[in-house]
Amino acid sequence: MAMRDVAIIGVGQMPVSEHWDAGLRHLALGAIQAALRDAAVQQVNAVIVGNALGGNLSAQNHLGALLADFAGLAGAEALRVEAADASGGMALRQGVLAVAGGLADTVLVIGVEKATDRTGSERDTALATVLDADYEAGGGATPAALAALLMRRYMHEHGVALEQFEPFSINAHANGALNANAMYRNQLRPGAFAKAPVVADPVNLFDSAPEGDGAAAVILTTTERALDMVAQPVRVRGSAAATDTLALHNRADMLFLRAANLAAGRAYEQAGIAPGDLDLAELHDSFTILAALQLEAVGFARRGEGWKPAVEGAILRGGALPISTFGGLKARGNPLGATGVYQAVEIALQLRHAAGQNQVEGARLGLALNLGGLGGTAVAHVLERVE
Amino acid sequence: MAMRDVAIIGVGQMPVSEHWDAGLRHLALGAIQAALRDAAVQQVNAVIVGNALGGNLSAQNHLGALLADFAGLAGAEALRVEAADASGGMALRQGVLAVAGGLADTVLVIGVEKATDRTGSERDTALATVLDADYEAGGGATPAALAALLMRRYMHEHGVALEQFEPFSINAHANGALNANAMYRNQLRPGAFAKAPVVADPVNLFDSAPEGDGAAAVILTTTERALDMVAQPVRVRGSAAATDTLALHNRADMLFLRAANLAAGRAYEQAGIAPGDLDLAELHDSFTILAALQLEAVGFARRGEGWKPAVEGAILRGGALPISTFGGLKARGNPLGATGVYQAVEIALQLRHAAGQNQVEGARLGLALNLGGLGGTAVAHVLERVE
Repeated sequence: MAMRDVAIIGVGQMPVSEHWDAGLRHLALGAIQAALRDAAVQQVNAVIVGNALGGNLSAQNHLGALLADFAGLAGAEALRVEAADASGGMALRQGVLAVAGGLADTVLVIGVEKATDRTGSERDTALATVLDADYEAGGGATPAALAALLMRRYMHEHGVALEQFEPFSINAHANGALNANAMYRNQLRPGAFAKAPVVADPVNLFDSAPEGDGAAAVILTTTERALDMVAQPVRVRGSAAATDTLALHNRADMLFLRAANLAAGRAYEQAGIAPGDLDLAELHDSFTILAALQLEAVGFARRGEGWKPAVEGAILRGGALPISTFGGLKARGNPLGATGVYQAVEIALQLRHAAGQNQVEGARLGLALNLGGLGGTAVAHVLERVE
Repeated sequence: MAMRDVAIIGVGQMPVSEHWDAGLRHLALGAIQAALRDAAVQQVNAVIVGNALGGNLSAQNHLGALLADFAGLAGAEALRVEAADASGGMALRQGVLAVAGGLADTVLVIGVEKATDRTGSERDTALATVLDADYEAGGGATPAALAALLMRRYMHEHGVALEQFEPFSINAHANGALNANAMYRNQLRPGAFAKAPVVADPVNLFDSAPEGDGAAAVILTTTERALDMVAQPVRVRGSAAATDTLALHNRADMLFLRAANLAAGRAYEQAGIAPGDLDLAELHDSFTILAALQLEAVGFARRGEGWKPAVEGAILRGGALPISTFGGLKARGNPLGATGVYQAVEIALQLRHAAGQNQVEGARLGLALNLGGLGGTAVAHVLERVE
């Protein structure tokens, strides 16, 4: 059966930051209102919330009903989707499916995370719930510690030096510096990387993305309706998700992001494109090693060479495949369950040619790749400018 | 556009209990394997997990990837759906939509909750995350306390006495006594209700359902494929969800379950039926007052008279509208995020005429109504026997 063609008709976002003056619901409301205003719609059929840790960090589950109510949309169907820090991408995918399958004509997807209300061990414990509680987190592992294992192994297997990851951070910070919604707007001087404090050897402060508070929203409808509603809709050409083992130690090949490979492959196939057709990609660069591994998994580098597009400048805004064009997780910040929706908002702005100083010239086709944990979940979307 | 007709081809469940010998993943695996065996399928396209409190009670989020992996289904798309204790019903609905909309041909829906690994205030705090954290739980409210407010108000407004709620519990326990998967299998003697310990005046021990560990699973496919695969598929004739305000104090009419009314109404409309056509209903009887209010909201009693079908015996297995036919939340137990899937499993067994001692004679059409919290979320499914 034919599924309906889906488009993004509105986007909204809050700055990623430590929002001491706003709770989870207030952050969400800001993004929701901006997106509704952008699309010039007042009502939606369904509200899909992407959130990773509300139950742990804000003592608040049941976010579907809460946010539908707080946004004045009570009555509409609402649910929360959770897939660790891929919650936002997965919520977007559920929204796309709802419109594509004919369930709903207008859907609001809201990714939100209030990440900074807990500190110290309470926060670390919450963040580690995206790992295997019995076999990873229970033994003291954290996401950074596991990323360090991956990075060390990669450097050993492929003979890669630490400084070859530096250009990922320099690029992210250069783009973040131009983005008013970014958490960190400082440029990174070449050489600073080598002197950065170590988080989990060899992962340092500039390898790993900061968790932040944030909320981002998109409004979806059919492309057919979208063309009558807004000047510049953005089509969803591909949407796919896949899983890998949650625990890193269960993977036959730890250095290959299988879920990312499967999800991106399916999304390319739906869109009828090859990786080389893309004008930009928002990857899940929670750690520089993950950025390198994603470039390999989704067709931009050979195995062991995912660092090369960074070193060679292909990932810069003028390069062959710009990534982290608004700062990525590293500089825009990683508001966990909201991150995947930020990616979609940023690509939509690029494809509308409304990205201001962050604009990728003539962008027409973009990939959003959102990971949960160390790649246990992957969600890929291919978005296209309507010409 | 026409959506595809969806059917349940496999069901599985674990006994609801305090499972000291099994973790969340083990409970889920038991139900998943039983459902796959029942449907005689080995692979699925997607795994949808209904779970309310894994992050809080088991320090485990990211359950989609975890359970897909643990069940040998890694690679398949997987996500967790959360809508408080309506998580199971909402997961079922997402599964139905995935098949109906053409995303997937075979979907596994698994509801699971490991509710008893935390005790005392830790557990109470976790259970209260389904309420409004800032304006209800933060002030010390619990689900039982809010149910007590509702019940007291109902008794006052409509001149109803406490003993008029007793038949709900007697019916649930009578049916639970025959169900090997029920948490409580004791009969309730008439009169015991009046002497029961008070939980939150006027809610007593026999008014409120126990939280338990449990897991239940269903396998979905198109009805067209189902007819070739199993002897007795069960059709999903209606599927709908709606929300009300999360906080009780924000409702214009606290004694009317608006979300339940909307969801059931939409599901009836999809199925082309009237309430009187139903042969049985599994309602969300986490408190007897909610059972009464649901009977009013979904068309079985007038306002203020939801207790009458209980007092008059209509809810018994031989009555006009049997409810809680395997014990309901009260006696089978309330494994929170799994409860909605248990309801679907139980109705499927009734419609297959495979309910053993719990069978409702000649059952052909059943309603599953799953609530989140005090009705902030409602999910309704109408299931039908394929003749």
